[in-house]
Amino acid sequence: MTDPKGDRSLPPHKQPDPDQFMHVVEERKDGIVVRGAKAHQTGAVNSHEIIVMPTISMREEDKDYAISFALPSDAEGITYIMGRQSCDTRKLEGGTMDQGNLLFGGHEALVVFDDVFVPWDRVFMYREYEFSRQLVEQFAAYHRQSYACKVGVGDVMIGAAQTAAEYNGVEKASHIRDKIVEMNHLNETLYCGCIACASEGHKEPSGTYCVNILLANVHKHNVTRFPYEISRLAQDIAGGLMVTLPSEKDLQSPETAKWLKKYFKANPDIPTEHRMHILRLIENLTLGTAATNYLTESMHGAGSPQAQRIMISRRINMQEKQRAAKRLCGIE
Amino acid sequence: MTDPKGDRSLPPHKQPDPDQFMHVVEERKDGIVVRGAKAHQTGAVNSHEIIVMPTISMREEDKDYAISFALPSDAEGITYIMGRQSCDTRKLEGGTMDQGNLLFGGHEALVVFDDVFVPWDRVFMYREYEFSRQLVEQFAAYHRQSYACKVGVGDVMIGAAQTAAEYNGVEKASHIRDKIVEMNHLNETLYCGCIACASEGHKEPSGTYCVNILLANVHKHNVTRFPYEISRLAQDIAGGLMVTLPSEKDLQSPETAKWLKKYFKANPDIPTEHRMHILRLIENLTLGTAATNYLTESMHGAGSPQAQRIMISRRINMQEKQRAAKRLCGIE
Amino acid sequence: MTDPKGDRSLPPHKQPDPDQFMHVVEERKDGIVVRGAKAHQTGAVNSHEIIVMPTISMREEDKDYAISFALPSDAEGITYIMGRQSCDTRKLEGGTMDQGNLLFGGHEALVVFDDVFVPWDRVFMYREYEFSRQLVEQFAAYHRQSYACKVGVGDVMIGAAQTAAEYNGVEKASHIRDKIVEMNHLNETLYCGCIACASEGHKEPSGTYCVNILLANVHKHNVTRFPYEISRLAQDIAGGLMVTLPSEKDLQSPETAKWLKKYFKANPDIPTEHRMHILRLIENLTLGTAATNYLTESMHGAGSPQAQRIMISRRINMQEKQRAAKRLCGIE
Amino acid sequence: MTDPKGDRSLPPHKQPDPDQFMHVVEERKDGIVVRGAKAHQTGAVNSHEIIVMPTISMREEDKDYAISFALPSDAEGITYIMGRQSCDTRKLEGGTMDQGNLLFGGHEALVVFDDVFVPWDRVFMYREYEFSRQLVEQFAAYHRQSYACKVGVGDVMIGAAQTAAEYNGVEKASHIRDKIVEMNHLNETLYCGCIACASEGHKEPSGTYCVNILLANVHKHNVTRFPYEISRLAQDIAGGLMVTLPSEKDLQSPETAKWLKKYFKANPDIPTEHRMHILRLIENLTLGTAATNYLTESMHGAGSPQAQRIMISRRINMQEKQRAAKRLCGIE
Repeated sequence: MTDPKGDRSLPPHKQPDPDQFMHVVEERKDGIVVRGAKAHQTGAVNSHEIIVMPTISMREEDKDYAISFALPSDAEGITYIMGRQSCDTRKLEGGTMDQGNLLFGGHEALVVFDDVFVPWDRVFMYREYEFSRQLVEQFAAYHRQSYACKVGVGDVMIGAAQTAAEYNGVEKASHIRDKIVEMNHLNETLYCGCIACASEGHKEPSGTYCVNILLANVHKHNVTRFPYEISRLAQDIAGGLMVTLPSEKDLQSPETAKWLKKYFKANPDIPTEHRMHILRLIENLTLGTAATNYLTESMHGAGSPQAQRIMISRRINMQEKQRAAKRLCGIE
Repeated sequence: MTDPKGDRSLPPHKQPDPDQFMHVVEERKDGIVVRGAKAHQTGAVNSHEIIVMPTISMREEDKDYAISFALPSDAEGITYIMGRQSCDTRKLEGGTMDQGNLLFGGHEALVVFDDVFVPWDRVFMYREYEFSRQLVEQFAAYHRQSYACKVGVGDVMIGAAQTAAEYNGVEKASHIRDKIVEMNHLNETLYCGCIACASEGHKEPSGTYCVNILLANVHKHNVTRFPYEISRLAQDIAGGLMVTLPSEKDLQSPETAKWLKKYFKANPDIPTEHRMHILRLIENLTLGTAATNYLTESMHGAGSPQAQRIMISRRINMQEKQRAAKRLCGIE
Repeated sequence: MTDPKGDRSLPPHKQPDPDQFMHVVEERKDGIVVRGAKAHQTGAVNSHEIIVMPTISMREEDKDYAISFALPSDAEGITYIMGRQSCDTRKLEGGTMDQGNLLFGGHEALVVFDDVFVPWDRVFMYREYEFSRQLVEQFAAYHRQSYACKVGVGDVMIGAAQTAAEYNGVEKASHIRDKIVEMNHLNETLYCGCIACASEGHKEPSGTYCVNILLANVHKHNVTRFPYEISRLAQDIAGGLMVTLPSEKDLQSPETAKWLKKYFKANPDIPTEHRMHILRLIENLTLGTAATNYLTESMHGAGSPQAQRIMISRRINMQEKQRAAKRLCGIE
Repeated sequence: MTDPKGDRSLPPHKQPDPDQFMHVVEERKDGIVVRGAKAHQTGAVNSHEIIVMPTISMREEDKDYAISFALPSDAEGITYIMGRQSCDTRKLEGGTMDQGNLLFGGHEALVVFDDVFVPWDRVFMYREYEFSRQLVEQFAAYHRQSYACKVGVGDVMIGAAQTAAEYNGVEKASHIRDKIVEMNHLNETLYCGCIACASEGHKEPSGTYCVNILLANVHKHNVTRFPYEISRLAQDIAGGLMVTLPSEKDLQSPETAKWLKKYFKANPDIPTEHRMHILRLIENLTLGTAATNYLTESMHGAGSPQAQRIMISRRINMQEKQRAAKRLCGIE
């Protein structure tokens, strides 16, 4: 969905480089030819299909930009340029510790469409600029509801923090317990948001269901805040060792292994390696590859915070609130 | 529900004054005689019936305190002692401005039961101490869900702040608009909480529905925080005049009325009196009679913040979160 | 200093009512005649002298408004109209409990100047509009530094909260102790602000000292936030009884006194009256007459939050920060 | 200063492994032999001398652990084991972009003392356990004052965020300007803290100056919070591109360079490379090598947050605050 956007003060048709928004460059009998790019595409390379939509509401002058279509990911003319993530090369180092999360990861890509042909039966919107706003707002609302996923990452963060506290031998300290409660409280508040906007959704005439757009924006807006505080609390609980741990290779070196095993032992029932593993996971979630998703992508994915604030101000029924206030204090 | 509790470090049966928790003092053939008091009873005087429940979980030694019953509000032996509220006597001053909210109000009372007889058919729990914890936790969860009501007060606060901004002539300033968005965002986050704990509820074998207890506590916990910030933002928008406005009587005095009407005029289309009315409403909501409900009662009603934190820590599935974290970083 | 300002989108000389900013209406041989008003004047009635200054920076067209002078408080033509405060009439009820603070209080007034004569030797600025901005900014900085006073109120709030906790019998609970620490932390952070802007001040050529203007604004800006959180924490610690306490008169009534003394007893070593006194003080500070000063006046006194934000953005050396950033990442 | 500490519930002399705190293992005529380790030593490898101090207050049973001394960094028996930092290996990749900060960096090390000899003239404390608490508290206060340094990092962060906003073409948006003000406000509040605790310091009988210990702890405690919020705001302003930028190598590849230069162009006056450079700096500061110092080390360096809270509660004069509160409400 996200076009590069170029000069943000200009609409698509006024951009010095017309390709800053995806657009039609040729109409053929059997389809259209498109040019442009989509940035920040999470999971692009492991998807079978790429679905393209406009990224902003448009006017008539922008109608060449009001297009939506789908293509197989390997369609001719599409190039994927992978983004880097913090600590990405740790995955290439071998070993089972320093990458933090041994099982999963993700990626984002810039997807370039260099005069790509789309047959008519894969074109969903074609110059119907008058629907672009509705499409953008509704899709964004669904997308914002789906930030439910960060609650799952929050669960892992909380589990890791609790485990680190136990391995550090401090899990019974009242301030540690209180911070764990706070992390849970914030994480479950996010959960409430995604449940509420789904639960308050409605059936469209088409038969699909649409989330409550106001609440979906409210939910996502909290996602731009709480993961940062949850992450801060996890770093508080983990302790400074999380960022001063030597390399896994030092743990294998005969010269240094003995010192690390000796001096990083805290809870006598827990192998030092376990403590290092869990701290590397918290590092991964708060500073490493997963932090790019849990933090920065929570901020900007599915729309940056200001986008949600604009939607909240549009969707609130302010007249009703003012009417109630005036009535109570005797105005009119 | 709320007993006075006396010395908070002691259970009911160890209190120096046994009446600090409601208890049975006599069992008769046709019913029981109870003694004690219930504090902070919102709306007690305008209720037809008083339903009494235990306020904490109990052990066998406390079984005389494990009682629940209902009585007509005017049953013999019950005394109501009304609580004061900030600015309560403004209602007695006459006029239509200084009391802020002209239409509604509330009250709390200490309800004293001085050897009151309860016939058996109004007794719901009698010495069944083993169910007191379940009763307290479940009722508290329902009660915490019902703090949905503060969202309605928040609506009034937001409507009043927007109106004050218009009357002050500053409603288009970007920082004012941003603060209105923030107030709405916080208020709708509360709304999400009460919807979510209801939506995630379940049907009990009895046929009634029970809210999700974890989420009800999460919701109420936010209610102990956000109204304070919403109130702070409302005071920011209202301006200092809210606390330096002269009395309504000065507006009627021939000596001072002309000055007030002249110098408190801001938006030329709005009568000065309207501006004063809306500021008095915000004063009422943030410092006056309604503030006791919107702020302090949001804090302590249906359980103080720490009560919710304890419930959150009990209801979270920490093992599952730790299992996920350990698996991801390769422990075990 | 604070003029009523009328229509806030207009400068003084364009106001429909020219008196919305204090101005000269006549120049005489021996002095000038002024007209206008000053709003929100703290302590006006117990001051011996009134010093008047412009409230905003001005251009040439506004030169009649660029005036500063001093007068005895009882000069002919000055009228004081007192503002109300939350719970103000409790001071008239008699008794020693419900007013909270038995010893001190304050007030604000609208001060109206109805064609008041000022002799030349009391005129400090006269149509020198080009200095009005400097005068406003420098005076505001001094004034913002002086919000050190709220740290003293914070001390009382913390002392009251700790005492309430002891009287409630909960002072050793870890969450209570933690909240007391947080209140102190916030209050001392405010103290740091007022010390720092004084300590970083400089000697003016005239021999007087001027505070650091940036830091004075930073300090005052925190004062618009932290007292609200300190107040919220005090209400958390105080408990709900703070807003449900019956009147002092009920404590004297033979019918109700026995119930209040019995059921509001918590810590066995403390008379119930003591507990009621301290809760009434916290009510006074968070909802009553003192709250108008500790909260709302912390927000708007010496300039509303947005005024400080504008000054912070003006006084920051952004070029230096950008130069450092660019150098570190190799730009240029 | 920081010993590994082993089982945190036990004092030094009860640790299963006695080396978890630095201690004397032999007393010789010409000096002492010490064993133990110091963790998290910032800049250890580029220091000429290592000064060792106890890390906690001690009792008589721990007197072998109450030692302080200095040694050349390369004294025999000392081993340095370097810690990893997020994104550390980017420095080995070559290039001038992906490492973010081209000029500076830091490190932490575990410093192991394996039976190291210290001559008497380098021993400053030897078994004088009764002074360990004073030494720890006073040194910690100095150290906490020195967290002034994070204000400098904050300056770079703010400069980088402002530059990124300009390069993105959004620096005039009101919400961007407001976030820049907020970053400055928080950063200058930290500055106030370090100035205040120095300014309120006092001259010791020895002639040295000591900072105000209470305020130094208050200052450091804010350092455990505000950098996280400043960092969050920087990520908000930077935009999602910060974590989806391809590698610098893709910018040099003939196949991809053209797409990156084309599609990551925003402000037409700024080369795409400049935009990438500044985003890599913000990545470095919020997720990379510098984040370990600006965030996690702000949390735990010079003592974790709870250490400051304990000191705040010890150093506050609570009696004075309670006396004031009681006097005002008429208790006694």
